[in-house]
Amino acid sequence: MATNNAIGIDIGGTNLRVALVSEKGKILNRIRVPSQGNILTNVTSLVDRLINDKTAGIGIAIAGIIDKGKGSVVISPNLPSAEDLNLADIIGRKYSLPTYMLNDANAAALGEKSAGKGKDLESFILLTLGTGIGGGIIFRHELMDVPAEIGHMTIVPEGRECDCGNHGCLEEYAAAKALINMATSAIENGTKSSLGLCCEGNIYKITPELIYKHAMNGDMLARDILKTAGKYLGIAIANLANIFYPSAFILAGGLSNAWNIYVEEAIREADKRAMPGLFDKDTVFRSEIYEDAGLIGVALYSLFT
Amino acid sequence: MATNNAIGIDIGGTNLRVALVSEKGKILNRIRVPSQGNILTNVTSLVDRLINDKTAGIGIAIAGIIDKGKGSVVISPNLPSAEDLNLADIIGRKYSLPTYMLNDANAAALGEKSAGKGKDLESFILLTLGTGIGGGIIFRHELMDVPAEIGHMTIVPEGRECDCGNHGCLEEYAAAKALINMATSAIENGTKSSLGLCCEGNIYKITPELIYKHAMNGDMLARDILKTAGKYLGIAIANLANIFYPSAFILAGGLSNAWNIYVEEAIREADKRAMPGLFDKDTVFRSEIYEDAGLIGVALYSLFT
Repeated sequence: MATNNAIGIDIGGTNLRVALVSEKGKILNRIRVPSQGNILTNVTSLVDRLINDKTAGIGIAIAGIIDKGKGSVVISPNLPSAEDLNLADIIGRKYSLPTYMLNDANAAALGEKSAGKGKDLESFILLTLGTGIGGGIIFRHELMDVPAEIGHMTIVPEGRECDCGNHGCLEEYAAAKALINMATSAIENGTKSSLGLCCEGNIYKITPELIYKHAMNGDMLARDILKTAGKYLGIAIANLANIFYPSAFILAGGLSNAWNIYVEEAIREADKRAMPGLFDKDTVFRSEIYEDAGLIGVALYSLFT
Repeated sequence: MATNNAIGIDIGGTNLRVALVSEKGKILNRIRVPSQGNILTNVTSLVDRLINDKTAGIGIAIAGIIDKGKGSVVISPNLPSAEDLNLADIIGRKYSLPTYMLNDANAAALGEKSAGKGKDLESFILLTLGTGIGGGIIFRHELMDVPAEIGHMTIVPEGRECDCGNHGCLEEYAAAKALINMATSAIENGTKSSLGLCCEGNIYKITPELIYKHAMNGDMLARDILKTAGKYLGIAIANLANIFYPSAFILAGGLSNAWNIYVEEAIREADKRAMPGLFDKDTVFRSEIYEDAGLIGVALYSLFT
């Protein structure tokens, strides 16, 4: 007899991903499409293709501050089109299934706890390092029901403006958009870099992956950008270590691939700044299910909440 | 029949305070002496004067990172003489009573939860604003067993050196020592201020109370100092609101008396910086038992742990 499964939906700024997840946290089937057009239409057309008669719940992961009661997004600086859309309610009615919405990084923390590096950890902080920076906190083996908006921690008091209305947010110094801005403005201002010759000369097509690739090939601008971003990430990690002293930090999201320069600099900086005894550099792990953590977490949440 | 009571001990940088506390959290008797000489001798001589045959536990609150298992202080930047002293163990044996040690701000959070403004709150963050800045976090009605070293949150990446080894810590910008340093160095550098005429001309005797008094009398330097410090405190409050979205912030410690300028500036700054919806300026409260919260909290902890 087949066991229950659930649909996990991850609405990101770049991609929309939907998966069918077993109640053990295994991905059974998945589809990914670029995020464009009407969110609701896109989501339901993908769900239609994956749902089956053993599906017992639907979970929606999305960046931003979630009103769990309403199942809607209150604020999503990187995805404003999703605000005020009662997505969980609409989808739940359409499929007559319990449907929940979670912040994407909170969902990823749950995924890591069920099926990833965090499985046996009593506490950890998950950071998603992508377009923005999100957080999820596991404490005493459970997800803390808190916003964990770590990307909007002020890191530079008089710093760059952020879409959230604050200035000097971590995201503006250590997330993908920050890396890209640093690269293009340095090249515009005449800094010599092999990045200037990439993308058929269109520097506005520079991606974090390219910055990392050029850095690994020895380009000084690319290295500096990643190190600077890593330093700011390290300040945030030290601040979190001083507050929580978690058993681990688990890093997910596209930028966690830039481990050698960006993350290693972050670990060095955190180690210098955290109070003695509150940070152990051997407790920073890279997610092994980083693209899937949110999908798995939010799908299981819909089954077991 | 008299009910049980407990001894609460608060070892501060300026004063050593010991109290006899009822199991309902009422202070029955208390002594305060200046912190000087041998900590252990001083503590036991005060405990001897208060303890009675209904005393069922002893709690010790002290600034710093505590090893609860050992009952000793691991790191205490503002009280280095207490480090590596197994105080809880020694005192527990001497009086044959269960004896525990807690971080002072953690203890104060427990005190606020049992007998203060936090009594009915599901979650709150307590900040002690004194020589340094400490924190205690109540979540789901319970004290989170985390360091909550909020005073060592990096607020200015390339900022002032802190005793903890980091630089740019909140304490160096918003605690008593920071206010005093800002005042003396401004006057040394020729800034005109009524503070320059205080303390019989000895500006090294300036206290935070004096700064507040002069600010309330219209002295511009004193006002600027309190506003600047308040601004940095507000950044920290916004960061905490973005992470926890607590039901309230409760402010204790001597500096919480400087409400009109320092704390009000902090609230304004936090309101500007926190993500929309995650901070409500009407949820910042002043402790009503601020000198006693730690004593009450740590005494009750020794009874009910």
